[in-house]
Amino acid sequence: MAKKKKEAPLTGITISKEDDFSGWYTELINKAELADIRYNIKGFVVYREWATITIRKMYKKTEDLLEEKGHLPLTMPSLIPESNFLLEAEHVEGFAPELFWVTEAGNSGKLPERLALRPTSETALYKMYSMWIRSYKDLPYKRYLSCQVWRYEGKMTRPFLRGREFHWIESHNVFATMEGAMEQVKEDMESTYQILQDECCIPMIFFQRPEWDKFAGAVHTYAADALMGSGKVLQLPSTHLLGQNFSKPFDVKFVDTDGEEKYGYQTCYGPAQSRNYGAMIAYLGDDQGLVLPFDLAPIQIVIIPILFKEKEDIVLTKAKEIFERLKNKFTVKIDDSDESPGSKFYNWELKGVPIRIEIGPRDLEKNQMVLVKRHDGKKIFVKDPDLEKVVDEIAQNYTREIKEKSMIDFESQIELTYEKDAAIEAIKNGKIVACGFCSIDLDGERCAEIVEKDIGAEVRGKRVDEEKHEFATCLICGKPASCTVYLAKSY
Amino acid sequence: MAKKKKEAPLTGITISKEDDFSGWYTELINKAELADIRYNIKGFVVYREWATITIRKMYKKTEDLLEEKGHLPLTMPSLIPESNFLLEAEHVEGFAPELFWVTEAGNSGKLPERLALRPTSETALYKMYSMWIRSYKDLPYKRYLSCQVWRYEGKMTRPFLRGREFHWIESHNVFATMEGAMEQVKEDMESTYQILQDECCIPMIFFQRPEWDKFAGAVHTYAADALMGSGKVLQLPSTHLLGQNFSKPFDVKFVDTDGEEKYGYQTCYGPAQSRNYGAMIAYLGDDQGLVLPFDLAPIQIVIIPILFKEKEDIVLTKAKEIFERLKNKFTVKIDDSDESPGSKFYNWELKGVPIRIEIGPRDLEKNQMVLVKRHDGKKIFVKDPDLEKVVDEIAQNYTREIKEKSMIDFESQIELTYEKDAAIEAIKNGKIVACGFCSIDLDGERCAEIVEKDIGAEVRGKRVDEEKHEFATCLICGKPASCTVYLAKSY
Repeated sequence: MAKKKKEAPLTGITISKEDDFSGWYTELINKAELADIRYNIKGFVVYREWATITIRKMYKKTEDLLEEKGHLPLTMPSLIPESNFLLEAEHVEGFAPELFWVTEAGNSGKLPERLALRPTSETALYKMYSMWIRSYKDLPYKRYLSCQVWRYEGKMTRPFLRGREFHWIESHNVFATMEGAMEQVKEDMESTYQILQDECCIPMIFFQRPEWDKFAGAVHTYAADALMGSGKVLQLPSTHLLGQNFSKPFDVKFVDTDGEEKYGYQTCYGPAQSRNYGAMIAYLGDDQGLVLPFDLAPIQIVIIPILFKEKEDIVLTKAKEIFERLKNKFTVKIDDSDESPGSKFYNWELKGVPIRIEIGPRDLEKNQMVLVKRHDGKKIFVKDPDLEKVVDEIAQNYTREIKEKSMIDFESQIELTYEKDAAIEAIKNGKIVACGFCSIDLDGERCAEIVEKDIGAEVRGKRVDEEKHEFATCLICGKPASCTVYLAKSY
Repeated sequence: MAKKKKEAPLTGITISKEDDFSGWYTELINKAELADIRYNIKGFVVYREWATITIRKMYKKTEDLLEEKGHLPLTMPSLIPESNFLLEAEHVEGFAPELFWVTEAGNSGKLPERLALRPTSETALYKMYSMWIRSYKDLPYKRYLSCQVWRYEGKMTRPFLRGREFHWIESHNVFATMEGAMEQVKEDMESTYQILQDECCIPMIFFQRPEWDKFAGAVHTYAADALMGSGKVLQLPSTHLLGQNFSKPFDVKFVDTDGEEKYGYQTCYGPAQSRNYGAMIAYLGDDQGLVLPFDLAPIQIVIIPILFKEKEDIVLTKAKEIFERLKNKFTVKIDDSDESPGSKFYNWELKGVPIRIEIGPRDLEKNQMVLVKRHDGKKIFVKDPDLEKVVDEIAQNYTREIKEKSMIDFESQIELTYEKDAAIEAIKNGKIVACGFCSIDLDGERCAEIVEKDIGAEVRGKRVDEEKHEFATCLICGKPASCTVYLAKSY
């Protein structure tokens, strides 16, 4: 027999999440076949079937929510002429190091102008907005795109968490007033909680990012940090108050009720990202593999017939009957492959299927079956006529149960510190540091550099919800504190 | 007041479809705000909200159908290294003139290898298939991608119908035998009928394309031609039998039941394209604007309150009541803007909303409302308690009614011709020509060139369903005919 390259056989995960998070994540991605990093361009990965299905479900929920809140979808070209970027100086400066450029086409060689693969769509879209928006009647103007973007990322890439091509939803909105725009920012933050916390069970908190860390061209950036446990955070969706920073150079104007022509106030927001998926599987997964919220699982129920000789037919028939009873309400699969029951259990646990139904000849005799819940491993013996009722109950409670375990009280994560050494110690101990800070305007950037160098953490910014802690002085420079900030390590 | 560029005000379509199809199509696109060609890269257009929503619904139907038939989704990078293309000689030769190249990134300048924007994904995907597929147990291997592709198109571009970036679904499949692959081609053709004919009401027929007109690298190409009326056709989805043409250079192998390692047999298929949307709106639309199948309309029912002074409140209250009664089952909108009722009628006809409900003070007195069906303009007076029943009936029959009008019997479109002059005449008269042909292998290419030059039509290929007409000799060279082919002008 000819030799053929093979993947390692599918077995359980061998690295403990607690001991080696990074190794565990890589093994999870490979063993559960979520992504393939062997694609032959650095930083570009294939999202495999199981991940694609869940990411789509996450997209769908986000799109539905945006549409409920009055956003309409659009489809934009993915290339942006270089000249568009040059219109907003801060934006181009921020994104220039990250752009991929199309410079040649067909047999005709060089293009007359370089075309960027979009890193984000402001500079493509706002040129159109200036043609589409005419009057106050068109406002608020709320749109979104579901698309991919490309960034020539310098940092190490990781499947879903950081790549040179990633998938997201971006929403772009125009208002008559700054207050209207700020209301949108608040709505965006609420939507983020609805999607990430309620649907994906990821605990998170919003910070207003410091000036040196905001979106290129924004007035302010408000970003969700996922609380990944042990003090580390991961940046998730952010919403940006753009004010008139783009509407002026891109000429996004409207005739107001008073007949005057005015520049619009804008916001943009990135609610969905392949990164959300990465955060979810990293945060919820365990040493058996994936744990997925019920709605987001590609398969919700797997039926495993336990086959013994001479009893195969009746068990298989029963398995099919169960399938028929459940298939209209749930995504169900019968695994009748010739693997052993044990290896089937491992495999579907690895894949995070929420409910496993085991049915064998003995169960049949007792007119029962065994249900096992993935997220807590609980076994439930169910009498045949109760099946639908019990499955319904599990389905209804499953995501809430995960969430009850996964939510983290932010207050319990933080440590209030009044001097640098205490902050260094707290970060080492897996805490998020709350401290006084001189300023999150550009004046404070030097102190932030010291935080990074000496404390090994980043200034994540000012808490957006109610701030309960006050400090008199800046942890670093000792000058009067203008606000409380939070320091954390980030992924 | 400052000057501001404005779009033309929204009014009805002024060009007749029958007199000037091309002018009509352009006006439809602009007035109904379906696409914007003012994006500043040649051949790249924006799909606006109304088109995006319908295209998504078409995608969703296609994805659901593919998944029902055992395909799973994947997400592939959109860039392909130049070296991948070089593996299949015919493929690279066919696509080289159409590739956009990424050559630079960030501040670091030139990339070590040119990266193509994918024109189609064979050369990206099959390298992965060679790593993923191991055994006959993995077959059939049926996958699909929903993505966009880029082609540096030389022909004149048109919104939806031909562009340098377009959106599609591509399915890529591997089988143990050539017969298995051919069965997939048949399934694909059936799916095309289900989507395009049944859902989109586009009459069509499948041809096996001549050898000189097949997909680069395929054994055979089977392509749907939409019958656009007056003898012209428009190429829609095609499915390709690839045999082992790609599996050999890309090393897509499996261990068969006999323990031997063998190359797989492949197919690929592009069921959904933005072009399908273009074909649908072009074919079904009329001089009032869009006509859309019921399921595919972004808004299915528009309620127009006819407002007179002092009766405004009770009419608006009634409109809202109707909205509440219908909104759970249909996509409904109340148009309470301050436009005149007449201009609202025009606008929603232009947009192709299937059902318009008019309600005024007199209707209220009579406890009735007026329903108007977009596709045939029929007015129906409905007593208030009958509303739900009547709307249900219209909704159920609407698409079927469009289809009954739109289907074209292929036989009625063709003219059997036995000499060139008759064929020239038939094409002039808006017919599709059926004739004898020497060969659709490469031997016949010279005769096809004469068809194009002298008759002004293209050899579309050999009919895939039953052929009823036989000819003794080739229309062009007079040699014995090997088959019957069809000649038509195409868009």
